[in-house]
Amino acid sequence: MSTAVIKYNGGMGRWEPDARARLEQAALELYGEGGFEKTTVADIANRAGLTERTFFRHFADKREVLFGGAGMLKELLVNSVADAPHSAAPIDAIGAAVESVGALLQERRESARRRQAIIDANAELQERELIKLASLASALAEALRGRGVSDSAASLASEAGVAVFKIAFERWINETNQANLPQIVRESLAELKVVTAGK
Amino acid sequence: MSTAVIKYNGGMGRWEPDARARLEQAALELYGEGGFEKTTVADIANRAGLTERTFFRHFADKREVLFGGAGMLKELLVNSVADAPHSAAPIDAIGAAVESVGALLQERRESARRRQAIIDANAELQERELIKLASLASALAEALRGRGVSDSAASLASEAGVAVFKIAFERWINETNQANLPQIVRESLAELKVVTAGK
Repeated sequence: MSTAVIKYNGGMGRWEPDARARLEQAALELYGEGGFEKTTVADIANRAGLTERTFFRHFADKREVLFGGAGMLKELLVNSVADAPHSAAPIDAIGAAVESVGALLQERRESARRRQAIIDANAELQERELIKLASLASALAEALRGRGVSDSAASLASEAGVAVFKIAFERWINETNQANLPQIVRESLAELKVVTAGK
Repeated sequence: MSTAVIKYNGGMGRWEPDARARLEQAALELYGEGGFEKTTVADIANRAGLTERTFFRHFADKREVLFGGAGMLKELLVNSVADAPHSAAPIDAIGAAVESVGALLQERRESARRRQAIIDANAELQERELIKLASLASALAEALRGRGVSDSAASLASEAGVAVFKIAFERWINETNQANLPQIVRESLAELKVVTAGK
């Protein structure tokens, strides 16, 4: 690809290598300042210094800015489960997968925190988040069944994994110090094991 | 209260001792036949032989016919947790609570099955069901904290309990024989304990 093409591709829209990230950043800022409902796609494009047309090349609507990463999370979870050693127990394959998501989010703590505050302030977004988590649990269960785990054990281990993630994430988001999400995931899974053992 | 009042209370609406149950029955039939979206409140009232006015004395809208029992479920869960012996481990207090819901639903198998088929066919209703389950998990966690259980153990045990319920309910709904929901709840909780122990 020539430098000319990188800079300008003929009027259909400049090639903006960081357009998606700039739109995400602008949207998080605006949702946090004025609220999710009041922010328009035009506001977001404007703040990012891009056009609405560019926005819609990256996102179906303003809600999808907050949920566009779900596909990547799902892929990461499913691949982690598939890559776990054959000898790993289902719950430990799930634990490794949830930890890998924790490691990814750890790098994005500030935007994760801002995103969560926006979701907490809006009932419709909370519903969408619950759907996302349910869909991740289904994907995890499917990945476990691909390892030969029975239907019910796959579902139970996956639901337990998502529960661990939810609780670890909430702890991580609310802690003020330099909390480490993968570490909190490990601690929460260990605590779940103690709790379900009836202690 | 006089017999005359029971039969007729002056034109503001007859006292219909079974109106709520008749409306629920009519709604389940109609949602199953023509779909949730296409059914109107007028259709439901008509099928039940009641007025729309009576419908709205019992339900805020047609969706609430399917979710009107959530408050009762929550009360049953919270009371069961509170009533568990002081010596019961958190997960076993939760297990007893989920089992008590299982016993209640066991008596209503046919309507539970029909309700679930309606929900499975409609994305908006599935969202509402996820919200209901999340709200039940919060109520369970709150009840455990009331017993002096730590925040994180209360959340983990409650999320685990809701996962057990979801999986047991799905098994129960899909089995053709005379499956017993409280029994399936016990089996699923036992399996969760095995799974989280890493076996």
